[in-house]
Amino acid sequence: MHFFFIADLVGTFVFAVSGALAARERNFDLFGIFIIAFVAAVGGGTLRDVIIGRTPVFWMKEPLYVLSIFLGALTAILFQKKAGYMHRALILFDTLGIAVFTIIGTEIALSYPYQFHYSIVVAIGMMTACFGGVIRDILCNEIPVIFHKELYATPCLIGSVIFLGLRNFDFFQGYISLIAMFVIVVVRLCAIKYSLQLRID
Amino acid sequence: MHFFFIADLVGTFVFAVSGALAARERNFDLFGIFIIAFVAAVGGGTLRDVIIGRTPVFWMKEPLYVLSIFLGALTAILFQKKAGYMHRALILFDTLGIAVFTIIGTEIALSYPYQFHYSIVVAIGMMTACFGGVIRDILCNEIPVIFHKELYATPCLIGSVIFLGLRNFDFFQGYISLIAMFVIVVVRLCAIKYSLQLRID
Amino acid sequence: MHFFFIADLVGTFVFAVSGALAARERNFDLFGIFIIAFVAAVGGGTLRDVIIGRTPVFWMKEPLYVLSIFLGALTAILFQKKAGYMHRALILFDTLGIAVFTIIGTEIALSYPYQFHYSIVVAIGMMTACFGGVIRDILCNEIPVIFHKELYATPCLIGSVIFLGLRNFDFFQGYISLIAMFVIVVVRLCAIKYSLQLRID
Repeated sequence: MHFFFIADLVGTFVFAVSGALAARERNFDLFGIFIIAFVAAVGGGTLRDVIIGRTPVFWMKEPLYVLSIFLGALTAILFQKKAGYMHRALILFDTLGIAVFTIIGTEIALSYPYQFHYSIVVAIGMMTACFGGVIRDILCNEIPVIFHKELYATPCLIGSVIFLGLRNFDFFQGYISLIAMFVIVVVRLCAIKYSLQLRID
Repeated sequence: MHFFFIADLVGTFVFAVSGALAARERNFDLFGIFIIAFVAAVGGGTLRDVIIGRTPVFWMKEPLYVLSIFLGALTAILFQKKAGYMHRALILFDTLGIAVFTIIGTEIALSYPYQFHYSIVVAIGMMTACFGGVIRDILCNEIPVIFHKELYATPCLIGSVIFLGLRNFDFFQGYISLIAMFVIVVVRLCAIKYSLQLRID
Repeated sequence: MHFFFIADLVGTFVFAVSGALAARERNFDLFGIFIIAFVAAVGGGTLRDVIIGRTPVFWMKEPLYVLSIFLGALTAILFQKKAGYMHRALILFDTLGIAVFTIIGTEIALSYPYQFHYSIVVAIGMMTACFGGVIRDILCNEIPVIFHKELYATPCLIGSVIFLGLRNFDFFQGYISLIAMFVIVVVRLCAIKYSLQLRID
């Protein structure tokens, strides 16, 4: 789908920016910045492709992903001093990114030759959106932020389930994707605004 | 094999409990607890399946694994305050877990279409049992405990070698598994009781 | 190729030594030392094989790799007290190792059934050489050294690009490999000698 491919590249770009900013904060060199941008952007999808056996993994078949990451890292380096101003923009873009990645991951799982159980399909959708950030944090030697901050994986879970649920109705496919992505964005932004957490004490 | 499948689910449950308890100690949120339970339980087998090319990896084909992990994480959360009392039970279950996982990993390696060298078969058996814990510790940002505590991988190594050795005799296959698992349990429990380590100074 | 296979085993041995020395410094036990030696030596090639779908991964098909790693770990343990004296030798061997691994990775990517874009071929070459060290550092719970020290990935990048460039001329294939490896070694040694870094401030 044309729209999805562009959204995917935009999501990749945004995650690359966030990865590069994280690496920049830790004084990594240019190579380190690029690698962290890379894993933040494609880590989740790579893990997905590897464990379902969809190899070579997606970004190896389409150089535009690498270009997208390169531009993302460059943007982060050039505008790094304005990162404070960029903060709000980044949160918004990151939220769009996880929405797009969740739905892309869910669709890839659904259309895969192997017929996965729905719980696995949802897990694949979440993994696509969330594990780039996990690998980024591990390479930066930190506890992954999604394990102890505001809801991040939960909106993806909800969006993926809604996507699966709506498929049983007679709506137009692209419409379902948009609804599910919209829900992810709303839940995530509410979680940030009201510091929603999944804590137990 | 029926017995093995149940033992596998029990091992998965036990490792999920240990993973969830570790995540709980570090104040991870519900999502973090579930993910750590997940990687502790299926990380070793996932790595095994990925590097031998047995994809989609095992837990994606059988939703009972996910259910088993879910129940394990739930158990850890509900009985967490009794974790002190659970300590001995956990060690015993963990020991049973590595015994079962080592033999399952060894058998999968043996029955794989590619004919592996015996050293690789043993490595696959050990990896199945031990790498879930390694990935768990990395996600918790700690040095993997099996690199510097009591013998953990060594009992698995011994058990896997014994399993391969006994196959040359005319015993019943399930019997061999039981002997090998029994040896793993005994060596591991002795290692804990007498603080056996593989240190060099 | 005979020469390459031997060079590959030597590179594996050298990386195993460096991994084992790093594990030894951190007081890991014998098992920990062997595992760190293992991932340092074959981690890059394993990641390469997994993401391009070349499974079972290379070291599972040839027990000489395991033997090579075993000897490397043993060497590190036996001569550890002379590690000071070994320092220069290790740097030289490590440099030879990344040179060999870069070219092997580049060649594997070129000869793979899937036709990769040149940027991906270069990435695969670099990954083969550099990611063993990244995984080694993560298992030791440290920020990967190649993200913030002297040029390490850059010489591999340059060597891989030169290798691809020279293929368009009518030289003998083995000759191209030697030129590219020579360039990697020279750039890396210069980077160490003059503390060349890819910093931005």
